[in-house]
Amino acid sequence: MIDSPYLVKPGKKVRLDDWPTRDGGEFESKEASLPAVEKNLRKLDELQGELYAEGRRSLLIVFQAMDAGGKDGAISHVFSGVNPQGCQVTSFKRPSDNELAHDYLWRIHMQAPPRGVIGIFNRSHYESVLVERVRKIAPKDVWSRRFDHINAFEKLLADEGTTIIKFFLHISKEEQRERLQARLNDPAKNWKFNPGDLEERKMWDQYQDAYADLLTECSTEYAPWFIVPADRKWFRNWVLSDTIVRTMKRMDLHYPPAPAGLDDIVVE
Amino acid sequence: MIDSPYLVKPGKKVRLDDWPTRDGGEFESKEASLPAVEKNLRKLDELQGELYAEGRRSLLIVFQAMDAGGKDGAISHVFSGVNPQGCQVTSFKRPSDNELAHDYLWRIHMQAPPRGVIGIFNRSHYESVLVERVRKIAPKDVWSRRFDHINAFEKLLADEGTTIIKFFLHISKEEQRERLQARLNDPAKNWKFNPGDLEERKMWDQYQDAYADLLTECSTEYAPWFIVPADRKWFRNWVLSDTIVRTMKRMDLHYPPAPAGLDDIVVE
Repeated sequence: MIDSPYLVKPGKKVRLDDWPTRDGGEFESKEASLPAVEKNLRKLDELQGELYAEGRRSLLIVFQAMDAGGKDGAISHVFSGVNPQGCQVTSFKRPSDNELAHDYLWRIHMQAPPRGVIGIFNRSHYESVLVERVRKIAPKDVWSRRFDHINAFEKLLADEGTTIIKFFLHISKEEQRERLQARLNDPAKNWKFNPGDLEERKMWDQYQDAYADLLTECSTEYAPWFIVPADRKWFRNWVLSDTIVRTMKRMDLHYPPAPAGLDDIVVE
Repeated sequence: MIDSPYLVKPGKKVRLDDWPTRDGGEFESKEASLPAVEKNLRKLDELQGELYAEGRRSLLIVFQAMDAGGKDGAISHVFSGVNPQGCQVTSFKRPSDNELAHDYLWRIHMQAPPRGVIGIFNRSHYESVLVERVRKIAPKDVWSRRFDHINAFEKLLADEGTTIIKFFLHISKEEQRERLQARLNDPAKNWKFNPGDLEERKMWDQYQDAYADLLTECSTEYAPWFIVPADRKWFRNWVLSDTIVRTMKRMDLHYPPAPAGLDDIVVE
């Protein structure tokens, strides 16, 4: 687990009002951040190549956010330079009948990244303690025991070779208003507008409470949460690229050694 | 969790030498047991129909045994009268490359029974603390933490609606010898003989130790183990059918109520 001002230290109780949605870190401007992000993305591409070649471990990156929180944009920005063969993005939508016929981790487990691969979850198992809680699809005695399931599930993945990091893209309620409004006003963004988002927005506070609980209950040494200030997209991209690169560096990845005896081979 | 002389009480340390491989219970002979087994199988068929119609919960039955322990025969005998549409048998063989590229519970989770269905595992996730341990495929620090993963996984399934029972078909070393010999001598059984079974038999004691540990560590209120005396097939069948029927009765299954207003419908 790397250190970061945006890391939720395991065991720490989260109050989201205490966490910034707007930050610039040490950068004086967006322009000042761009070379640093670029450098991170080149490094990420290199590290992904090593992860793939090594083929022994995997990396799982979970993205969660309120609507218009920037998950799609962040994934597109951070991973567009990475070899897609070693990168597997899963967007978890409303579950199918067959998925609902199983426990909520069933469809998640199926999408766990195989060894050598970076798995990216656009939404995740955490929806089962978010929308199912806020919309009262699951009663409290059902959703509250899920924190333990989820921690145990992530422990299994970690013990068996998957490094896990989880990002909550944290935006303000005002920022969400502006982004949803832009989807209505900008023809190029109309396709992203979903009337259901306005219904969800009415339950902003309940969602924030649900997020605070899962961030408190499920940030662990083996699967830490990071609360990323996400009102400014450029700073969000910097935090993500920096956190991912530092996490992968700690994995101490290496290209596997060449098989012995290669020196003796003569190709004729 | 039902009571039974063959139940491993959660927390109880198992020494397999203390558990019978040969028993007849209250029956004076095989013949005396047959009507009781028949009655159980009819009841099982009825209960399965209710489970399927209700469509809200599932039942998972795990079978483990030493080679020639009788898993195939037991499954065939007990479930041959059950509607196959509501019954899903998975035989876990040597994992494929794609399965090995994931954690050991990945392929297991995929085969978890959906709501309304009885799932039967012929071998299971427990192979990961058996063959991988005895054959030293996984080192001790890896296999020993798997008991916790497995308990957490089974807790997830149980919390989300799956009743779980697990059967270890317990045979003596001498009974295994006779059964393997019969596979060699009886042309109708030759196809079942696998030379690898003789290699495994040499490690009888190590396997028994591994079984004792998993039976001790992983018999829980929500997923109990039963150690079934299995030298006599007729008695094994009785214990299985009795345990399954009593477990399903406790699930308190019911056909769902008819939708309201049916009385008013006139088919013209």
